Amino acid sequence: MDSKHPISEVQWQTFEVSKDARRKIKGHSSAIIWLTGLPASGKTTIARELEKKLYEMGAHTYILDGDNMRHGLNMDLGFSKDNRKENIRRIAEVGKLFSDAGIITICAFVSPYKDDREAARNLVEESEFIEVYVKCPLDICMERDPKSMYKKAVTGKMKAFTGVDDPYEEPDCPEIVIETDNLHLSACTDKIINYLEDNGIIINSLYSQFAEGIRIHFPER
Amino acid sequence: MDSKHPISEVQWQTFEVSKDARRKIKGHSSAIIWLTGLPASGKTTIARELEKKLYEMGAHTYILDGDNMRHGLNMDLGFSKDNRKENIRRIAEVGKLFSDAGIITICAFVSPYKDDREAARNLVEESEFIEVYVKCPLDICMERDPKSMYKKAVTGKMKAFTGVDDPYEEPDCPEIVIETDNLHLSACTDKIINYLEDNGIIINSLYSQFAEGIRIHFPER
Repeated sequence: MDSKHPISEVQWQTFEVSKDARRKIKGHSSAIIWLTGLPASGKTTIARELEKKLYEMGAHTYILDGDNMRHGLNMDLGFSKDNRKENIRRIAEVGKLFSDAGIITICAFVSPYKDDREAARNLVEESEFIEVYVKCPLDICMERDPKSMYKKAVTGKMKAFTGVDDPYEEPDCPEIVIETDNLHLSACTDKIINYLEDNGIIINSLYSQFAEGIRIHFPER
Repeated sequence: MDSKHPISEVQWQTFEVSKDARRKIKGHSSAIIWLTGLPASGKTTIARELEKKLYEMGAHTYILDGDNMRHGLNMDLGFSKDNRKENIRRIAEVGKLFSDAGIITICAFVSPYKDDREAARNLVEESEFIEVYVKCPLDICMERDPKSMYKKAVTGKMKAFTGVDDPYEEPDCPEIVIETDNLHLSACTDKIINYLEDNGIIINSLYSQFAEGIRIHFPER
């Protein structure tokens, strides 16, 4: 055994790479943007367009959605009430880790129950959770029905489907409401980006710098 | 309803922010650095020192360890064999998401079973999983015993403790072996950093640029 300084004798470093340190290296803050709304209300479309815009601004984002959660981490869960609750609980916990890692985290899930969304909100700092109600009348969602899920629910081929035979509990005080039957997609995402700028999550000048072809620098440390 | 371009009529963008796109914005690639070894072998100490060094190099890292997993995402799990398996499964899935997000992800868990580690490896691309065997003789780990866990296990106050009454299955072909009873902490982390450089996960010049006080630029897009 090396006598000089084996690992067992090393003191824990007081320096640790914190959320703030990671945010600093990125030049923007982090948050969880939680998109909630009926199936086919437009959550995933907004998430993708928002991510694209934020990427173009030089921001580091990640989308958590049904595709990467139900097929991976939550593949053991079904659609019973308990399983849905657990699905959202795990997503919220992962969202917390991502935001802690300095990433603007976009969660796109029906998440129909208030309690579950409140539990997600309570995991992080107050300013870190941005609830976005993706609002759209049920009849328009049913008209869109891109995956024919409403059709299956209405004909009884799918049970406990939100909006048909399972309730969607509207948010009381979401940070942002987006009415997707009335707004263009770019107006939807601009509304979120404006919120992020107004609340200091991202800095408007980031975008201007990119637009003018100026390179962004890592902040000096 | 706005007749021009409501969200329901918007085509899906062909552009998507991919793993490669996120890696590009960061100036380094991503990977899962999976530290496995007996309790008190030095995994967490190495993880923290490694993260510190990588941060100083301008790399974006995140540590998944017992603290942030057992108290959050995996708070519903105990220490039965099934629960341990599920613990590692979830960690691996979260690690995959983090690496997909472009982050150098450091996982520090005993993860005693080969099967579980293989399952974690199989979730991602071949070059993306770096198994680091943090090797240390059991008697030295028991001597260190920073949390008095071995003591509890030996006196029967803790059951199924790895190394005492539950097996640790050594990796057959880990990418890196670190013998923490023989190496200084900085030599342990340098071994990992050299591997990352040699395999193009990070670029040595990143560090040189920082060392010389030159600012790193976002790559041009």
